[in-house]
Amino acid sequence: MESAALAIEIQMSLLLFLALAGYLVASRINQSATIGAILVGVLVGPSVLGLITYTDFVATLAHLGAIILLFVIGFEFNIRDILDPRYGVIGLVGVVVPWIGGYATAVFFGFDFASAVFIGTALTATSIAITANVLKEIGVLQTPAAKAIIGAAVIDDVLSLLVLAVSTDLVVSGDISVVSVGVMLGKAVGFIVVAGAVGYFGIRKVIERMDATPLARKYPEFVFIFAMMVAFLYAMLADLVGLSGIIGAFLAGVAFAGVELRQSKGVHEGAEYFQIVFASIFFVSLGILADIRALTSDMVLFLVVLTLIAIVTKVVGCALPARAMGMCREDSLIIGFGMAPRGEVAMIVALIGLESGLIGQSIFVVIVLMSLLTTLITPIVYRNWFYKGAYCTPE
Amino acid sequence: MESAALAIEIQMSLLLFLALAGYLVASRINQSATIGAILVGVLVGPSVLGLITYTDFVATLAHLGAIILLFVIGFEFNIRDILDPRYGVIGLVGVVVPWIGGYATAVFFGFDFASAVFIGTALTATSIAITANVLKEIGVLQTPAAKAIIGAAVIDDVLSLLVLAVSTDLVVSGDISVVSVGVMLGKAVGFIVVAGAVGYFGIRKVIERMDATPLARKYPEFVFIFAMMVAFLYAMLADLVGLSGIIGAFLAGVAFAGVELRQSKGVHEGAEYFQIVFASIFFVSLGILADIRALTSDMVLFLVVLTLIAIVTKVVGCALPARAMGMCREDSLIIGFGMAPRGEVAMIVALIGLESGLIGQSIFVVIVLMSLLTTLITPIVYRNWFYKGAYCTPE
Repeated sequence: MESAALAIEIQMSLLLFLALAGYLVASRINQSATIGAILVGVLVGPSVLGLITYTDFVATLAHLGAIILLFVIGFEFNIRDILDPRYGVIGLVGVVVPWIGGYATAVFFGFDFASAVFIGTALTATSIAITANVLKEIGVLQTPAAKAIIGAAVIDDVLSLLVLAVSTDLVVSGDISVVSVGVMLGKAVGFIVVAGAVGYFGIRKVIERMDATPLARKYPEFVFIFAMMVAFLYAMLADLVGLSGIIGAFLAGVAFAGVELRQSKGVHEGAEYFQIVFASIFFVSLGILADIRALTSDMVLFLVVLTLIAIVTKVVGCALPARAMGMCREDSLIIGFGMAPRGEVAMIVALIGLESGLIGQSIFVVIVLMSLLTTLITPIVYRNWFYKGAYCTPE
Repeated sequence: MESAALAIEIQMSLLLFLALAGYLVASRINQSATIGAILVGVLVGPSVLGLITYTDFVATLAHLGAIILLFVIGFEFNIRDILDPRYGVIGLVGVVVPWIGGYATAVFFGFDFASAVFIGTALTATSIAITANVLKEIGVLQTPAAKAIIGAAVIDDVLSLLVLAVSTDLVVSGDISVVSVGVMLGKAVGFIVVAGAVGYFGIRKVIERMDATPLARKYPEFVFIFAMMVAFLYAMLADLVGLSGIIGAFLAGVAFAGVELRQSKGVHEGAEYFQIVFASIFFVSLGILADIRALTSDMVLFLVVLTLIAIVTKVVGCALPARAMGMCREDSLIIGFGMAPRGEVAMIVALIGLESGLIGQSIFVVIVLMSLLTTLITPIVYRNWFYKGAYCTPE
């Protein structure tokens, strides 16, 4: 064990050191910490310096990171955010249009069916972390446009995970008849509805009762361990029914969204500490995996086109329905650009595709870089073209 | 990756489920959660049910757990607790007498040199978690005896880690000349002094300055990632100079003891959330590893004798110096019994011995069970024989 123990210690300290370096890079180039961590990963990985490789240990930590990340994203889920039907329409069209755009672009560039499906799926997800941050910095988080972005993005998350589930099944089975797509869709929707309902109505009650027991008074950490257990149990169940584990982790997070504990240690708070460490390692490891040497000049062209398609389809797919439902032109565009960043979910989709052998290294790199590039556009557009004067939609 | 991911999810949810079961068992038998987790591990492991085995994944998590556990124990270190020279004398004699007792008992039972050294070392550690808990429940945590227990136990921790470092070196090299023991002792003391001083005076300052930077205001998680990085870096350095990684983790914890952060997320709090999850898994895994089928009738006799020796040597080794330094008879015995529980450090010593091949499976089981049994005695003795009337040493 001595050498195994040493190997663990070396890798943990190195990965955390790289995560810290990612923060410094992010701060210097005025981007999010996610982008900094990935850039550092690319730099030290096989792409440039070749100092570190993607070992089994790194893969294990990265997988833990993806599970915990989606678990914490699930916490942010607020049923009230998605009650406005307009958000549902924006979210739905904003998933369908980018999927078609990504799929068509991939087919146009001559990729096979599996790759095209994964590329389409990677284009559906929305990461509002960056958008929300910019909105917060400008001080307009309470405007109708900001609320629409957040509501539609939550719906987007659920729909993206659904698309991922169906796409993976579709590609693995190779059966694309209407019946089989229907069965897969039914299975995925069924799991999300059943697991979501059990979590939101059942487990939530269990947690609140558990928190009131003498056991929780004696052991304030009990509920937290229970919560982490539920996260991995849900991930396992999702995996077992043929979906991705992260879908389960997200639904487990939803079960804990807004739960208030009186005697126990905070679940949300504790999971965030895990997220801080494991998600940092996850993003560094994505950079390590993204060997940019896999990019031929053809793939660079594909990357540029795909990134433009990703931005245009999301902006159009969200702005048009918003405009159609009575929001003003400026607010509609703010919503469109606010939904454009892809971020972590797209990258996890790419990782699942790569590790299951459904997409190649070069497509993985394109998706990771596309996701990075889409996150750069929103802050620039917001700061330069919008939020200079009054707002058109009354509060 | 799909099957690897599933394997991670299955094992994580199972281990956390077992940890929860450990709490229920502990609560039912009115013992600490540590004991519950180990008993559950024994039950589901090869000893009884054979439902789960000690995989590489479990070993990795257990090692992370040991590191984080000692890191958090380091936080509790308070330089003022060890300033009273009486505590130093109690701690020192309370380490030397049990070491000799354990070593002599092992030699008497015919064990080889390496095993005898490890058994002696396992008897040196004191786990005051259980004692402190009982003292707290009885409401006498502020008495002179309680303060002496805590001060002496902290010194004990440092001395035990020192003994572990020297013992391991001694056994591995097989060289027991006065010169080589002196060199090993010098190396261990040197590392503890240098790494401790760098941490306590250097890294502590770095953290406080880091916390005041705009970077920490922008990223409140930065200091926490830095702290975790330091924990693993120190563990790695300890390993590299030939000590155990946990010694480094403890010293890293000392560097963060009592640090107050203004802008950053709490390091102590975050590390405790990690400890909750990983230490639970660590104790369950110890139970899984402790295959009690390895206990022959000879070994059962050895276990009984060793446990009695462990209790007697600690009670005598701590009570006598306390009495000699002017504490009353009752307080001296309270201190002696308060120092008797061994707990996690003894078990980690056993694990290091087992995984480096220096002790066999049966000795590992004896040490784990001895450590468990010593933790049962203190609450019984305290509740039945002491704390029934007034206290003899004036406050």
